[in-house]
Amino acid sequence: MEIAILLFDDLTALDAVGPYELLKLMPEARVRFVAKRPGPQRMNGGNLVLLADDGLGDVIHPEIVVIPGGPGAKLALRDPEILGWVKTVHETSRWTTSVCTGSLILGAAGLLRGLKATSHWLAREALRQFGAEPVAARYVQEGKIITAAGVSAGIDMALMLVGLECGEKTAQAVQLGLEYDPQPPFDAGAPDKAPQAIVELLQSRAQGR
Amino acid sequence: MEIAILLFDDLTALDAVGPYELLKLMPEARVRFVAKRPGPQRMNGGNLVLLADDGLGDVIHPEIVVIPGGPGAKLALRDPEILGWVKTVHETSRWTTSVCTGSLILGAAGLLRGLKATSHWLAREALRQFGAEPVAARYVQEGKIITAAGVSAGIDMALMLVGLECGEKTAQAVQLGLEYDPQPPFDAGAPDKAPQAIVELLQSRAQGR
Repeated sequence: MEIAILLFDDLTALDAVGPYELLKLMPEARVRFVAKRPGPQRMNGGNLVLLADDGLGDVIHPEIVVIPGGPGAKLALRDPEILGWVKTVHETSRWTTSVCTGSLILGAAGLLRGLKATSHWLAREALRQFGAEPVAARYVQEGKIITAAGVSAGIDMALMLVGLECGEKTAQAVQLGLEYDPQPPFDAGAPDKAPQAIVELLQSRAQGR
Repeated sequence: MEIAILLFDDLTALDAVGPYELLKLMPEARVRFVAKRPGPQRMNGGNLVLLADDGLGDVIHPEIVVIPGGPGAKLALRDPEILGWVKTVHETSRWTTSVCTGSLILGAAGLLRGLKATSHWLAREALRQFGAEPVAARYVQEGKIITAAGVSAGIDMALMLVGLECGEKTAQAVQLGLEYDPQPPFDAGAPDKAPQAIVELLQSRAQGR
């Protein structure tokens, strides 16, 4: 079970590392970190560097594809080499998935036309430009394509995917191994739960970019 | 606000990257990844490499210290250089924290004697050898020491810490930015919630190591 996680500069590390930590626990899983230019990829924020061991041409038939998001997705979704790779691996993948604004990369590759999809709540409407129908959900499955909401949603999506691939018992074992029993000390993780002033703060910051 | 996250080989990446993703959003935060040997650190599972830019001697007065866990913690907690660094940074830190079996490293450094603490549920009892009192909790605060439970608990702990340091509004903004509104598709994230057979499976695997 080969799993390819795309890396690029200025992505949000947790988008990639969350799913990695769960998917790598599937039996026979082999995770490969893939980038246009193999080697160090500097994450959003600048202080964390992840290494991509493989180039795009090294991994062309992964069973599972994970496309993370983050500020760097804006460049990635205009990169013909990256979009070409996404189209190619999707042809033979069992599952093509995204986290956060990684869904915009799937969209730019033409994979979401006519499909329901989700993304970071601040970026969801941008899915329309790629012919997708934005949905406010933790993750959305359309055939073999699964798009997850912002950053931490990749963990829930990956757990669901472990269940689909390996069954409920394996998914439960993975969840218990990671002690994934979330108890956030605040309840502001979605725009309909957070105070309106906080929602507007993040909206204005996003527009300022 | 300098934040030091200790890296070592064979740690669980999410232990480090979860807190990183939240703590780096605090105003004026500067996260530094620190290792005994700066450079590439191969994470548990072998396919993910994080870079440590700094050596132990480069970061000696961080305000926040994060000690992650994972299989490599067994070696780290016997390493006099690492334990010496943990003791040193704890002298002047505002917060000394751990995720998962990182608490065993705090324990080995002598910081948990007479204190309540937590760890990954499979490792909790091992805290007793360091004079700590194990507690089944998502995280435990004792003065300026905060220990979190297994892997994903570092996210909850870090969110709590953002609230302590910067107030509820900043914590809510961080939570909303990461869309941390967890909705795990299974409910097996703690030993008292998972099926007994799954609990026993992980216990027997851990004993086999």
